[in-house]
Parts: sequence; structure tokens; C-alpha cells
Amino acid sequence: MTRILVSEVGPRDGLQSIKAVMPTEAKKAWIAAEAAAGVREIEVGSFVPPSLLPQMADTAEIVAFARGIAGLNVVALVPNARGAARAVEAGVHGISIPFSMSETHSQRNVRKDHPAMLAEIAEVARIAREGGVHFAVGLSTAFGCTIEGAVPEDQVVRLAVAAAEAGAQEFSLSDTTGYADPAQVRRLVRKVKAAVGADKLTTLHLHNTRGLGLANALAGLEEGITTLDSSLGGLGGCPYAPGASGNLVTEDLVLMLNSMGLETGIDLEKLLAVRSILAEALPDEPLYGFTPDAGPMLDYAERIAR
Amino acid sequence: MTRILVSEVGPRDGLQSIKAVMPTEAKKAWIAAEAAAGVREIEVGSFVPPSLLPQMADTAEIVAFARGIAGLNVVALVPNARGAARAVEAGVHGISIPFSMSETHSQRNVRKDHPAMLAEIAEVARIAREGGVHFAVGLSTAFGCTIEGAVPEDQVVRLAVAAAEAGAQEFSLSDTTGYADPAQVRRLVRKVKAAVGADKLTTLHLHNTRGLGLANALAGLEEGITTLDSSLGGLGGCPYAPGASGNLVTEDLVLMLNSMGLETGIDLEKLLAVRSILAEALPDEPLYGFTPDAGPMLDYAERIAR
Repeated sequence: MTRILVSEVGPRDGLQSIKAVMPTEAKKAWIAAEAAAGVREIEVGSFVPPSLLPQMADTAEIVAFARGIAGLNVVALVPNARGAARAVEAGVHGISIPFSMSETHSQRNVRKDHPAMLAEIAEVARIAREGGVHFAVGLSTAFGCTIEGAVPEDQVVRLAVAAAEAGAQEFSLSDTTGYADPAQVRRLVRKVKAAVGADKLTTLHLHNTRGLGLANALAGLEEGITTLDSSLGGLGGCPYAPGASGNLVTEDLVLMLNSMGLETGIDLEKLLAVRSILAEALPDEPLYGFTPDAGPMLDYAERIAR
Repeated sequence: MTRILVSEVGPRDGLQSIKAVMPTEAKKAWIAAEAAAGVREIEVGSFVPPSLLPQMADTAEIVAFARGIAGLNVVALVPNARGAARAVEAGVHGISIPFSMSETHSQRNVRKDHPAMLAEIAEVARIAREGGVHFAVGLSTAFGCTIEGAVPEDQVVRLAVAAAEAGAQEFSLSDTTGYADPAQVRRLVRKVKAAVGADKLTTLHLHNTRGLGLANALAGLEEGITTLDSSLGGLGGCPYAPGASGNLVTEDLVLMLNSMGLETGIDLEKLLAVRSILAEALPDEPLYGFTPDAGPMLDYAERIAR
């Protein structure tokens, strides 16, 4: 049975995109409950300046808590070298830095052009290496940009190679803007794998902005992708890409993968119960997902036992 | 470029599942507007007794109207031979009869067991042949049943073969209950194609009950499916399968297909504009879809020109 890693990004990508600040204790309860449901990797927060994102001010404390959960891979997002140093100090297993394939998006988002980002990636790689933490680069806006429109595939390939030369251990292709279609996912995964090595591109970070999220995930699986980012209740998105909210819904993704006979290790019933923590802590935030309303199929237990 | 037929089933599957009765003139406006947007096939209604489904009482009039639209394939659902005779008389191009793979569902839905349904199919086939109309059998609850749970794949294959022997010209696999997963779609499409002939299974009728609709559609496309049923605004579902509402959303399906470079002949912008007819005629019905909220990608025109 193929083992697929569902990487929960809600505590980072979800929470960073909403106005409400989730109390630290609720974050801990969320992370603990998802881990107990079988989730093996959680992006627990980001090391950005608290003045920019007060939602992430407690990330170091959250990392320390999450590190106490046996078997959980604790990852965090860092925007730059300073964030990387804080992440290493906090004790994460891994860090990732978003590298926007659209230079306009990069400049608006982190005020850095591509050469400046590659210099930052080299510095982050050094910090990660010295700190002994895993380091991934998220190739964001890889499928298109809400400002520039199309992002040439050759540009994504070229920048991925440059990031690998700068020290990136691994990559994810990120559909920050919800632009991807399944044919494009297949093409780009193939091209980037061919350029940086198949083992270096294992992850897709997809959004469901136009409802194509799970179809894109399927296309990725068929191209050998083994890690899929998602967010409980579909919370979140990119605050700098208007209308681009909505990660893949973890509940629907897990239903799909488990039903297909792929092994996620996640107990869907326990996962669905975790929503109540979000609903209680963020009463004004809409939670998405079809499976929570419909429930699993009547023969779900038979499907996953197959 | 591969040509994919998007078959709009909203005027039948959508309207039959809601309480409100859409005025005849609104139905005509809807059908005319979708055809003008490039939709080449519409299931315009069903020939069931008006006492059971008052929403469908005007189907003969709707058929006559739709037949006046050049280039539009006008199909209708019939539950039995009596309905088939009425459909032929009304002048449809094609009819389809749902044949529930779950015998319990069949008995509850149309009070017929499998042998009785096969006898009905033979009679409908005769009427269709004499009337010169195309005749398809919809293998409903093919991916599972809300009453029985799992429906054995061998049973679906066996019943499809029996229906072919009874005179079915063509089949669709219908996920009446929203149970399908992409791996199951691939398996079942392959098995049924192998049993009845690849050219006799061209259509999938999918529901989005658990959010897997477009992923299932993609799996079908990769197995050679060339016709996909969907409903504008995701209107509808099966009134006899609790919680099973929600056809594939035509708008999201067309966005996906067109973006992938598959040819549907449908103008997305014109299609999106048709929603206003539904919103006005059915003000209390929720309309679904992600694309209507997010809009096409900024580079959509480039994608479809590729």
C-alpha cells in the first residue's frame, strides 16, 4: 500500500490568513488532537515578526509543545534568515521558505526580487544545515499569479534549479493562488522533477479556490507526489493573493486517499471530531468541507480495509 | 484536441430534487442560454407522472421548445416504458432510464426488482428503436448505495451485460449517492468497458457529495470517458438517497476541462451569466460552485488558447 503523508498546514496557512487570533491553548489542543488522529506532520506556525502577524506570535511556544508529541514531524515556515534562526532555536524538525515564482508577487509579498531571494535561501540553507534541521523551499505562485497572470513553466524550472544550487534540500510546488489545473500539475511536476531530481520534489501545496484542489491532488499522486498539504476545515489561504483563500480541506483529502486504498494513517472519524476545537476557538470563521456534512460512505470501513 | 461533451442535467436532476417548481418560461430561458453558451446536450426533463413530480409536468412542452434550438441534443429521463412512449411522442433525440445496481434502492425508488427492471428496459429499448431515438441505461448507485452500502463491482458488470442483452445502446455509470472515489472510478470504468464494449460506456454521472466529484471526473477522463453530466450551480441530486444532493457543478467542470486544453465548446463567461436565470427563478435555492465566486484565472484566455 502506498503511504501518503498528509501535512496539516492549518495552524500556519489557515491562521495567518484570518483576522482572529487563536488562543495558544486552542492551538495546542488542535495540534494534539490532529496528532492523536494520526496526522504525522504539522506546520505549526511561522517565524515572522509578531508585529506583522500577531496570529503567529506564540509560534516558539507552539513548537516546544508540538515537539513533545511522539512521532510528530514539527515544521514551520520562515520568511527569511532571521526567522530561520528563530525556528532552529525553537527546536523545529524542519523549515520551509516560500519562494515566489512570480517576481512581482515576491516583491509585493516580501520586498525581494529573485536574486535577493536566492541569497536569502542560501543563508537559510546554511542556518538549517548548522542547526541540523530539514530545509524545503516552497515554489509559490508556481501555477500562476494574481498580479502577473501566467508564470512560465521554464521560469519555475530555472528558479528551482537555482534554489537547489543555493542549498534547498527539497521542494514543494505551491498553488498559492488556486490557479492549477490537473494537466498543468502533471506537466510542472514532471519538469521540476526532471530538473532537480525526482526525490527532491515530493510535495504539493494546493488551494481549492476554483474547486479543482482534489483533482489536482490526484494528478500529483499519479506523478509520484507523496506529500499533500491541507488545512482542517479548509481554513486559510494567501493574504497577499486576493480571492485565493482556501487550502485543500484535510477531511475531504483524507476521505479520498483512505477510500482509494492509500495509507495515510489518519482516522477519519477522529479527524472530523477535531473540527469542534476550531469551531469553538474561531466562532466567526467559516469551516469548509463536504465530508463533514455528508459523513463517510456507509461502506467506508470496507473500503479502507481493502 | 480531445473533445469532451458536457451534458447539462440541471433541468432534470437539479429541478427534480427541489421543492420549488420552476416556471416553464424560466426553464426555456435557462436551456436557451446554456445552448447559446455552447452546451451541446441538455437533459431537459423527465417523463414521470406529474402527480409524483410536479416539477416535471411541462417536460413535453420543454422538449418541443428545446428541439427548436439548432445543434442541441435533447435528452430526457424515463422511469419506464410509459414514460418512454411519452418521450418519443414529445420528440426527444434520446432517452435514458436509470437502472439501480442496488436492488434495495431499485425497489424503494421504482418498486421493481432487477428482473422486473430488465423486462422494462427491453420494452423501453423496443419503443426507442421503433421511435428512432437513442437509448441509454444509467447504471445508478453503481459506486455504492445509501441503504445497502457497497455494491459489488461484479454485480454492476453482470447487470450491465444483462441490460445490453435487453437492448441498451449505451451506458452511463452513475454515482447517485456521491460514494465514488477515483480508484474505484478507474476500476469500474475498465470492468464495464471490458464487459459491454469500450464504445458503449462513454458517460459518467457524478455527484459532489463528498467533494470528490472533479477528481472522479479526472479519473474517468483518464479511462477514456468523453461525456460528463453536470448541473449548473450544482443544483440537484437524488431525492431518494438522503444526503446525496449535489451534482458536479457545470461551471467548475467547464473551467477544469477548458483549462486543461480539452475542448468543450463552452464559453465560460456566458455560462456563468446563466446563473442569474436560476437565481431569479429559484431565489430560495442555494447555488454552488467555486468558479462563480473566484472567477477564472487571470491567464484563463491564454490557457484555453494553448
